[in-house]
Amino acid sequence: MNTQDKLRNPHLSEKIVTDQIAASWIKDGMTLGLSGFTRAGDAKAVPTALVERAKAEPMKVNVFTGASLGSDIDKKMAEVDLVNKRLPFQVDKTMRNKINTGQMWFIDQHLSHTAEALRQEVFGEIDFAIIEAIAITEDNRIIPTTSVGNSAAFVNHAKEVIVEINTAQPAALEGMHDIYELGEQGSRVPIPLTDSSDRIGETGIAVDPDKIRGIVFTNQEDSPSTVTPPDDDTEKIANHLIAFLEKENDEGRLPKTLAPLQSGIGTVANAVFSGLKNSRFTDLEVYSEVLQDSVFDLLDAGKVKMASGCSITLSEDKMNDVFPRLDDYKDRLVLRAQELSNHPEVIRRLGLISINTAVEADIYGNVNSTHVQGTKMMNGIGGSGDFARNARLGIFVTKSIAKNGDISSIVPFVSHVDHTEHDVDVLITEHGLADLRGLAPKERAKEIITNCADPLYKEQLLSYFDRAVEQVGGHTPHLLQEAFAWYKNFDEHGTMRERELVMN
Amino acid sequence: MNTQDKLRNPHLSEKIVTDQIAASWIKDGMTLGLSGFTRAGDAKAVPTALVERAKAEPMKVNVFTGASLGSDIDKKMAEVDLVNKRLPFQVDKTMRNKINTGQMWFIDQHLSHTAEALRQEVFGEIDFAIIEAIAITEDNRIIPTTSVGNSAAFVNHAKEVIVEINTAQPAALEGMHDIYELGEQGSRVPIPLTDSSDRIGETGIAVDPDKIRGIVFTNQEDSPSTVTPPDDDTEKIANHLIAFLEKENDEGRLPKTLAPLQSGIGTVANAVFSGLKNSRFTDLEVYSEVLQDSVFDLLDAGKVKMASGCSITLSEDKMNDVFPRLDDYKDRLVLRAQELSNHPEVIRRLGLISINTAVEADIYGNVNSTHVQGTKMMNGIGGSGDFARNARLGIFVTKSIAKNGDISSIVPFVSHVDHTEHDVDVLITEHGLADLRGLAPKERAKEIITNCADPLYKEQLLSYFDRAVEQVGGHTPHLLQEAFAWYKNFDEHGTMRERELVMN
Ligand SMILES: CC(C)(COP(=O)(O)OP(=O)(O)OC[C@H]1O[C@@H](n2cnc3c(N)ncnc32)[C@H](O)[C@@H]1OP(=O)(O)O)[C@@H](O)C(=O)NCCC(=O)NCCS
Ligand SMILES: CC(C)(COP(=O)(O)OP(=O)(O)OC[C@H]1O[C@@H](n2cnc3c(N)ncnc32)[C@H](O)[C@@H]1OP(=O)(O)O)[C@@H](O)C(=O)NCCC(=O)NCCS
Repeated sequence: MNTQDKLRNPHLSEKIVTDQIAASWIKDGMTLGLSGFTRAGDAKAVPTALVERAKAEPMKVNVFTGASLGSDIDKKMAEVDLVNKRLPFQVDKTMRNKINTGQMWFIDQHLSHTAEALRQEVFGEIDFAIIEAIAITEDNRIIPTTSVGNSAAFVNHAKEVIVEINTAQPAALEGMHDIYELGEQGSRVPIPLTDSSDRIGETGIAVDPDKIRGIVFTNQEDSPSTVTPPDDDTEKIANHLIAFLEKENDEGRLPKTLAPLQSGIGTVANAVFSGLKNSRFTDLEVYSEVLQDSVFDLLDAGKVKMASGCSITLSEDKMNDVFPRLDDYKDRLVLRAQELSNHPEVIRRLGLISINTAVEADIYGNVNSTHVQGTKMMNGIGGSGDFARNARLGIFVTKSIAKNGDISSIVPFVSHVDHTEHDVDVLITEHGLADLRGLAPKERAKEIITNCADPLYKEQLLSYFDRAVEQVGGHTPHLLQEAFAWYKNFDEHGTMRERELVMN
Repeated sequence: MNTQDKLRNPHLSEKIVTDQIAASWIKDGMTLGLSGFTRAGDAKAVPTALVERAKAEPMKVNVFTGASLGSDIDKKMAEVDLVNKRLPFQVDKTMRNKINTGQMWFIDQHLSHTAEALRQEVFGEIDFAIIEAIAITEDNRIIPTTSVGNSAAFVNHAKEVIVEINTAQPAALEGMHDIYELGEQGSRVPIPLTDSSDRIGETGIAVDPDKIRGIVFTNQEDSPSTVTPPDDDTEKIANHLIAFLEKENDEGRLPKTLAPLQSGIGTVANAVFSGLKNSRFTDLEVYSEVLQDSVFDLLDAGKVKMASGCSITLSEDKMNDVFPRLDDYKDRLVLRAQELSNHPEVIRRLGLISINTAVEADIYGNVNSTHVQGTKMMNGIGGSGDFARNARLGIFVTKSIAKNGDISSIVPFVSHVDHTEHDVDVLITEHGLADLRGLAPKERAKEIITNCADPLYKEQLLSYFDRAVEQVGGHTPHLLQEAFAWYKNFDEHGTMRERELVMN
């Protein structure tokens, strides 16, 4: 294999090994820092080889990543019980199950916090950073692939580094990354980023070549995202949101260019971005985590002039469309580390409009993003807390019901709180939008019940609220004994609807 | 009266009026922005005159401030039902009661968020900013007194300004303020503050003299703080905290100079600062909201080299001691706007150690700072969210019990969430300290129950936790039907202890 344009420091070619050999270095009890963010740019070969090894030779390691992995790696690791502690985010069903049955530990962390915790040596050292790369430059910089994630932090804090050069990743990614080291807290300068297009760092992750223990060549594409197309409800949510942005624009609170947009992944986000395509808004900017299909549609349509993210996560079709002509986007795309894409300093300075999805919200606007029925972990808080707290507009969206209406996603008291009422400015369901800014809790409750709840649950919610106001009162009235009764009803009767209603 | 050194632009003296006249300009339905933060630097005369007027002539106004006021102004306003909506923080018993009985609205807001909301015009315009000052300079800058709060934001966003020149405030305060305007989100530069001692702005608030409608002369000291001396429990909490900081220092995670310290007000904060006096730590820095007695003790002892805050709030004795020799502190004190003292950008950059008080915490480390029994507002979240989320160490302290042991401040599920488990690194009670960093929820529960709970409640908490793990499981096991039963027990039997225990 001609490795020269991939390993431009010729000494490095001595370090080429197979994935099995690299995996053999990993010992029981070690901590690994893997590249990868939302299926993009994950180290694929060595973790897979490690899983194979663990089948014969049971072992446990801690696995830290950027966010979720692709290539079924979390699933495979979970299946062989390889993981002791996992952080900061995952989305795999098998792994989720292991977490929820107590077979492995999971730390659900703000995505911008992991790198700080590494600097503070909260978790001890990383034994191996395993990083997917396009190439390593003459001056020993690792060029990441489709995501940056926590890779720079892992490389900096690891004892040793394993690089996976993935020849299936588009070479044109080189130059799109912007790697900036914040430095220690207390001796840091301001982050010199004042516009989503600013480049403030280097195009690769500096590494001491002596720290590179091995280099593995691979040729495997990222797992494509599986975007479910917008349905009726998500389109309604998107329309409510766009109408709200238009109103803000009409009333002079937002310009025609809006403000840099962040959105979580998934179908609502795609629907919103699709809706923007035919809107009045122009010269939009995206300052987000994941750049998904719809961002590229908007770049192509000239609606978005600049997109900054932490990963590029595309469907199969979109990969085939975009990757061959990636050079066209060179001046309009930047990939940054997640502590930069999610940094409170930058989010607040730029004044982002932030759109994230809730599992459920309560009548006062507290949001649960993570725990089904208050106990079972879904994915993790991800970056939603980084964004919602610091954005100009912290917007949460959710369908008003789940499980064919047996669950209301608007409840009296959320069974787990990830975002407090202080951080939730706007709540949207398919039924409507509650603008909660400047409202006190009891005013918020009226807005939310009236505009967001499903008709199936409106009366029940109003009844709870009215009785709480009357019987208990206070700033945030609650009937604590009844607050969680809806979950019990669902457990026992298969629905959150009250008996009488069920029998109708 | 010789007003020349107070009103250095001679034209301004034409604007001098009585407090009654100034108060007469205020109309029913208006919104007022008052100076004042934690009893310090509040506008005193005009609000008091307005209260007098409202006795004869019932009216409603919205009252926005920095934080809590002194001089019983919140109490007096509440008594005459003057206030429609109040934000972002208050601590007065009468007002609290009006809020909790639904006789007025209250918005409980992160203290760093109010100025942004004003820029975004979320609340509409401020009709009158009423600002206490030392003087107005030749070039039309209002020199604040013992606090900065939201005064600059109010002046910027108000239609008209009323200035109260308070001749009882120490003239030496002039020069200690650092007023910096962040500018609109999206066209802002980085905040050029990299050290607690940095001065980045001007010493006064620029005002268009045409906007000044009136100037009132007053001579009335701030309400002194009423610091309760450390008791046994708060001393124990302080000792646990200092032992923890020593351990962090021993293990190389913190230097001897620690990191800039933030602490809420009150007796625990004072106990911690007193404890630091005889500790190994040197050249400490304070980057906080309120500078209270103990900060001046540490400045005097040479332990603290620099203190940056948003207000100076002292006991009567300490005022008498400090104010006459305020010049001695000139190079070691800075007073900033609350959006600067509490800015996520600065807090994260400096890597603060943040210490705040909880009403209650749950076994997973979620914290309630505001709502008694989940419903009744105490004071507000204040700056605790600004600090805890962005600090290097987010520390919460609370006594393990209240009401002679009939209430446990460690509960299965907090009745209101202000700080989620993601933001709570360390929890301390008089019994001990739980270091929650790097722990998953079930690990956190063990640490908290073992180290922080009162012996009266340990078994009950363990029983809840064990049954939740066994019967429900999940990432964060809960028995939702029982989660709030302790509050019911307290309501019905006057104690959170289980019956059997009560009968012993
Ligand atoms: C909240 C989140 C799980 C929603 O994901 P989604 O794919 O848009 O949601 P869906 O509507 O498809 O629901 C997912 C599942 O939860 C279920 N669900 C939805 N609301 C529910 C509720 N209130 N109670 C119980 N289950 C619910 C759905 O039925 C569905 O179940 P299934 O997988 O068995 O079909 C996801 O957005 C997330 O993980 N967010 C947190 C992280 C984040 O915000 N990231 C963005 C910035 S980084
Ligand atoms: C939380 C807070 C109210 C604690 O204040 P404190 O004066 O230290 O607390 P105390 O222990 O004296 O308790 C205050 C009252 O609450 C009661 N209390 C304490 N814990 C309680 C609990 N778990 N349940 C019910 N009541 C409780 C006490 O009995 C006391 O009641 P009393 O006034 O009738 O005597 C206060 O720190 C606060 O308002 N914090 C939020 C804002 C903040 O963090 N600011 C700092 C950064 S800006």
